[in-house]
Amino acid sequence: MNITETICANLEAIRDKRPLVHNITNFVVMNETANVILCLGALPIMSHAAEEVEEMAAIAGALVLNIGTLQPDWIRAMELAGKRANELGIPVILDPVGAGATKLRTDSSRRLLTNVRISVVRGNAGEVATLAGIASEVRGVESISASAPSEEIAQRFASAYGCAVAITGPVDVVSDGKRIARISNGHPLLGKVVGTGCMSSVMIGSFAAVDHEDPFTAAVGGLVTFGIAGELAAQASGDRPGTFHVELYNALYAIDAEAIRDRARIELV
Amino acid sequence: MNITETICANLEAIRDKRPLVHNITNFVVMNETANVILCLGALPIMSHAAEEVEEMAAIAGALVLNIGTLQPDWIRAMELAGKRANELGIPVILDPVGAGATKLRTDSSRRLLTNVRISVVRGNAGEVATLAGIASEVRGVESISASAPSEEIAQRFASAYGCAVAITGPVDVVSDGKRIARISNGHPLLGKVVGTGCMSSVMIGSFAAVDHEDPFTAAVGGLVTFGIAGELAAQASGDRPGTFHVELYNALYAIDAEAIRDRARIELV
Amino acid sequence: MNITETICANLEAIRDKRPLVHNITNFVVMNETANVILCLGALPIMSHAAEEVEEMAAIAGALVLNIGTLQPDWIRAMELAGKRANELGIPVILDPVGAGATKLRTDSSRRLLTNVRISVVRGNAGEVATLAGIASEVRGVESISASAPSEEIAQRFASAYGCAVAITGPVDVVSDGKRIARISNGHPLLGKVVGTGCMSSVMIGSFAAVDHEDPFTAAVGGLVTFGIAGELAAQASGDRPGTFHVELYNALYAIDAEAIRDRARIELV
Repeated sequence: MNITETICANLEAIRDKRPLVHNITNFVVMNETANVILCLGALPIMSHAAEEVEEMAAIAGALVLNIGTLQPDWIRAMELAGKRANELGIPVILDPVGAGATKLRTDSSRRLLTNVRISVVRGNAGEVATLAGIASEVRGVESISASAPSEEIAQRFASAYGCAVAITGPVDVVSDGKRIARISNGHPLLGKVVGTGCMSSVMIGSFAAVDHEDPFTAAVGGLVTFGIAGELAAQASGDRPGTFHVELYNALYAIDAEAIRDRARIELV
Repeated sequence: MNITETICANLEAIRDKRPLVHNITNFVVMNETANVILCLGALPIMSHAAEEVEEMAAIAGALVLNIGTLQPDWIRAMELAGKRANELGIPVILDPVGAGATKLRTDSSRRLLTNVRISVVRGNAGEVATLAGIASEVRGVESISASAPSEEIAQRFASAYGCAVAITGPVDVVSDGKRIARISNGHPLLGKVVGTGCMSSVMIGSFAAVDHEDPFTAAVGGLVTFGIAGELAAQASGDRPGTFHVELYNALYAIDAEAIRDRARIELV
Repeated sequence: MNITETICANLEAIRDKRPLVHNITNFVVMNETANVILCLGALPIMSHAAEEVEEMAAIAGALVLNIGTLQPDWIRAMELAGKRANELGIPVILDPVGAGATKLRTDSSRRLLTNVRISVVRGNAGEVATLAGIASEVRGVESISASAPSEEIAQRFASAYGCAVAITGPVDVVSDGKRIARISNGHPLLGKVVGTGCMSSVMIGSFAAVDHEDPFTAAVGGLVTFGIAGELAAQASGDRPGTFHVELYNALYAIDAEAIRDRARIELV
């Protein structure tokens, strides 16, 4: 089965099995990422208290850790949840929002990568380059520049940490150190709505929740499906980011195998 | 006056008096539930610091406690606010989000039910069954199953705790131990937007804010009005959850006594 | 250059330079205010941990402090960020949400005004009057009454604290103690969406980020642009607050110098 057909099968599995996707995430996108998961067909749960995250992680199909609006006590909860997920073979996605912008975020990302076995890291080029030890500039949560092409950053990151990595941008790049995929789906309006990076991370989490064995394909699936949803939403929106935001949920709910087969632009290198 | 006319009178009172509805609630739905309260015609206030919740509760028409994204220090604030509301005769609504899914949530719900005099508990069948000591399954914040019909769960809960209870689902059931109402309003799209359960709780809070004497009728009023708003929103949305979410606010703002008289499907048992 | 032309030039500068606007704000509006900043053309960053706020503030064009959903540890972070911004000459905007409603909020606002050099305070009449020592009533986060006209409150506040102040309402009033502006843009639907006051504060922050020398003009610019966006959004919405909320982002994204020149209603006193 080629990768597009695997993605279509995984999308169907999300809607059949309705896996729980557990998120420890930032305050800015809690509602929006939960709605992305629900519109796609999975079930979101947002829970961050150290007292309960292990129980929540244990019943989830995937765990998504997102360090936007980070505060130190949340990192401890992320570690507890991540270790419990590791014990049970549940994939863990890390979104290192703003790594490179502040010491707290860079250090916390590294600590999570050290103490938890991560399946996929999803970030922008600056964030991932920072963590791979490649010179870059991150301003706030925005990637300003990275001193290497995304393919090289991705491969160096994947080799260093032994996990899959997804670098999103005009062209998304996914690698697990052995394979590389370039994904050319998406739309510039995705850059005009807050949290679409975080949304793409929970898309990967939703696909990983039904595909525990192949994080690379889960990452490609999540990004392709999100990119196509962005294209469909843009068609319905004109150049209006408020309307586009609403249409993005509509598109995630409506997207099907036919749309993915028609529109997927995946280049395996 | 029959119950439908009481509900219409209460809706008018909400818009005339604009009562403050104080919420100590979860991070996922803070904005959305505040907008529900404002669109309906009341005034939302979201405040959770132990240092100020008693002052806020004291000027409110109703207090809504919601344990989604719970962390232990918030429970203490909920107790402080709840006790102050009790002293002043202000109704307290409890939404035990995820009770049954983790020990923290089950124990915290029980603690609030013990330490605060609650007027109405609003939850799904699994959450309420858990608290009534009836076998059930709650996954994350989703009710998977309960081993008794909602009417029986509601009556056992109301008898055990001496308060009104509202179990929402395809058919909503409200009981105060003596009376039972079945409400058949609503639309499946309400299950495709995050936080509609939490929204239904603040609807009950808004009605309770103008009807301190009859929590049963406040609960029926909040759920009927919300269900009808869902029906009106669905008519304007097609099968598109993003659009439906927007239209839900429009419908709550536009809903009037005529729509309630036309569409209310309340069966008093 | 008259004030309208300065505002048009500042709007262009926001879109050219894309300054970072750092927010330590409340949970209710984090997503919405970030989207306002992004739609307008600047870059939002939401970050509140004491461990990183000084780093974030140091790379920002402006810092916005908003005390809605206040808890005490956040005040400390606000002070740290504010003092760092002061050292670097970065303007600080304060939104004293609910000052006058609880002791925590009134005291915290005063403490921030004492310990941080604020460029612009933006609040409703009740909040600003409270801080100016003028009798008023604030219920929750709503201004109920103030015992003086906004112009007088603004001037007394500006004289007492030596900073610019913006009082929003049906007519907005801005003063820096020497100058007074009255702005008659806006639309009643802005009162039907939660957080539009907070949004107006980040509008001022975005304008201040490109105009460090003249907080008075930045405040007028933010409020005029936001008010006109509200008017344009209302034209596209009918009397529907959910739709209006979506159209508000569209309008902020589309607004240009021509719309400002056509519609600005600024009276300099």
